[in-house]
Amino acid sequence: MIGLPSYAGVMESLMNSAEEQPPSSLLDNKNEKPKCVGGFVLVHAGAGYHSESKAKEYKHVCKRACQRAVDRLKAGALAVEAVAAALVELEDSPFTNAGMGSNLNLSGEIECDASIMDGKSLHYGAVGAISGMKNPVLVANRLLSEAQKGKLSAGRIPPCFLVGRGAHDWAVGHGMPPCPSEKMATKFSLSAYKRNKRKMELAEKMDTGHNQAKKRRQSSENENCSGCLDTVGAVVVDLEGNVAAAVSSGGLAMKHPGRVGQAAHYGCGCWAENACNMNPYSTAVSTSGCGEHLIRTMLARECSAAMQSEDAHQALLDAMQNKFISSPFLASEDRVLGGVIVLRCCRCVEPQPSQNIQGILVEFLWSHTTESMCVGYMSAQDSKAKTHISRLPPGTVPGQCLAIEGGVCRLTSAVE
Amino acid sequence: MIGLPSYAGVMESLMNSAEEQPPSSLLDNKNEKPKCVGGFVLVHAGAGYHSESKAKEYKHVCKRACQRAVDRLKAGALAVEAVAAALVELEDSPFTNAGMGSNLNLSGEIECDASIMDGKSLHYGAVGAISGMKNPVLVANRLLSEAQKGKLSAGRIPPCFLVGRGAHDWAVGHGMPPCPSEKMATKFSLSAYKRNKRKMELAEKMDTGHNQAKKRRQSSENENCSGCLDTVGAVVVDLEGNVAAAVSSGGLAMKHPGRVGQAAHYGCGCWAENACNMNPYSTAVSTSGCGEHLIRTMLARECSAAMQSEDAHQALLDAMQNKFISSPFLASEDRVLGGVIVLRCCRCVEPQPSQNIQGILVEFLWSHTTESMCVGYMSAQDSKAKTHISRLPPGTVPGQCLAIEGGVCRLTSAVE
Repeated sequence: MIGLPSYAGVMESLMNSAEEQPPSSLLDNKNEKPKCVGGFVLVHAGAGYHSESKAKEYKHVCKRACQRAVDRLKAGALAVEAVAAALVELEDSPFTNAGMGSNLNLSGEIECDASIMDGKSLHYGAVGAISGMKNPVLVANRLLSEAQKGKLSAGRIPPCFLVGRGAHDWAVGHGMPPCPSEKMATKFSLSAYKRNKRKMELAEKMDTGHNQAKKRRQSSENENCSGCLDTVGAVVVDLEGNVAAAVSSGGLAMKHPGRVGQAAHYGCGCWAENACNMNPYSTAVSTSGCGEHLIRTMLARECSAAMQSEDAHQALLDAMQNKFISSPFLASEDRVLGGVIVLRCCRCVEPQPSQNIQGILVEFLWSHTTESMCVGYMSAQDSKAKTHISRLPPGTVPGQCLAIEGGVCRLTSAVE
Repeated sequence: MIGLPSYAGVMESLMNSAEEQPPSSLLDNKNEKPKCVGGFVLVHAGAGYHSESKAKEYKHVCKRACQRAVDRLKAGALAVEAVAAALVELEDSPFTNAGMGSNLNLSGEIECDASIMDGKSLHYGAVGAISGMKNPVLVANRLLSEAQKGKLSAGRIPPCFLVGRGAHDWAVGHGMPPCPSEKMATKFSLSAYKRNKRKMELAEKMDTGHNQAKKRRQSSENENCSGCLDTVGAVVVDLEGNVAAAVSSGGLAMKHPGRVGQAAHYGCGCWAENACNMNPYSTAVSTSGCGEHLIRTMLARECSAAMQSEDAHQALLDAMQNKFISSPFLASEDRVLGGVIVLRCCRCVEPQPSQNIQGILVEFLWSHTTESMCVGYMSAQDSKAKTHISRLPPGTVPGQCLAIEGGVCRLTSAVE
């Protein structure tokens, strides 16, 4: 499906460019006194297509999201709290397809998916097709924290995944304020809905005959799945080495009501696992792109598992190639559209060993088969976030080629 | 958590008993002319607790479900159609917690989860928290088959997972008849609801104080999760060697509206993968038990992956021990409740090689940590299904020990 040479070429050039610009968060300045709080955050505002005009807004929201997470980390929050804070900022932007400004479904309603995973407890919370809540990720996070408290009355097991009206009512019952749906739609999402509706009606009018159905389906194969790709997400590591991941999405434009995408699917939208006996690395992953592709390949969990091998860059490259683009689960798809952000870390050996300094080596990467992907990252020692629009090189085919970039950052903290 | 000696003891005795009673479906009678159609089905009516009085009904429905699948296989149906037919029979029984007779939720409503996977196309369909449809598995199956047709108008990607009202409306829009909810409740499910409601109210009355909350949660840790464990499912292989799996559940009794359990979770409720370059065996798995435990361990997919190693029995035993009972994802749970049925197969070498006879070796197993699990199995060459209630040996602790049993069956077919 994909010519290896061109793809290897893409990779190499991007690897080099990533190596040429190491993030400033590398803590080489030993005069700076390390703190007991801190960490690192990497966010994305979707894998899809970012025009130059949209790019500025996306970068801006990524920057704010990083800052929000770092503020929480500096205040001593654990990774899971910081990742939720980043997501709130991403959801609140009217430019992203999550929370405020989400795509409208076939009935002109907003239904959101979101999930969050805590690598420390391995607990998970998710909501699917939820309406009328400004921040779906906060409902998912509340499900996670309620589940950690143990069983409910009469031995009932608390839910980890709620959908639709029930999810909304559970959130309200737990003190979360509802938000009228009309406040969540934006001028942009409403006009996109009208445009899509006209497009659909036209397409269906052209193919009313039963015999035309097959032709219709084939002819639309190459159309772009516009407006379906700007899911948002984040991955965080705190100074204790705990990782967390989250993802949030308004889902496909013109999706059928009740459709749940990868953002609410366990193992597909996000994944986080602290290091343990079996796994030397803590890993966190958040995905974006075409929901059904990400679900059927279970991409978040696959990338997380791949990250346990020695070379993070090569491992992610192999995972994106073998478990996504060439996945047997998507054999019938001619374009496989998605992107991931990945973070992995381990305790590292200090160049000048000291008994009261502990270091965490953080490797962070992003990879996508879509035309572009917008990311931002920041460590608690940075004064501001770095943002970047990663693009496939000109001439390469989205859905058949990939881009991969990343960096390394060392976090240090005083040990009591 | 679990003493290996007692557990190894359980396994061995059960292995022996399984070996002592090989299923009659072994095609040793070479006088019987093999047909081009046929296959094998294994079903379950839940891992939980089956009293002697209930056992008869459960066995009966398993028998009918096997017969339904075999009827379809004999008519030339593929595995995925046969597995759906078995599920319909299991759902239609008022005794199982699926379809008709499902558990009622906190609001006294029935909301069902179901999913189906086709090992040939690797397509998947699922519905969550769906009300007012007699056979949720047929909606899941229709999602699967619609997705296989390719994109919708205007390049929209067809959904693989629908929930709630949207799922119901989609089904009706695709010509599936709605079923009034009151027709799906049974005398038994209604009286269980009233009993559970009283129990809950009593438990909550006893713990009104905030300070009591923690105590309440702890004190209920050891209570049994009654009525949550009789999910149904099936795995099938057809004579072409295609596998399929399905699962259906009414979910936890007194669950919160909108709660979605493992039966609708990709990788958790069922899994099916035909053999390919990477995998020598075709595998199919369906799970039952405590939804949240099965979700967080992604048990169906884990068991499927484990089945690629040489010794199927040992592989399932290891998976149930390491990926379920002792899973780091359930470290805080004192009892891990669930069960699986597993089928794996490969082309086999004929004892008397013949150019026009092809054989498929089917290994089928079940394993559970619950007190009991009801299964049935049948090959297309059998005159009737075998059923069995597998039980943990007396004195062992449910949720900490396991039982494992199984058999082998050889299917043959003429090659044109």
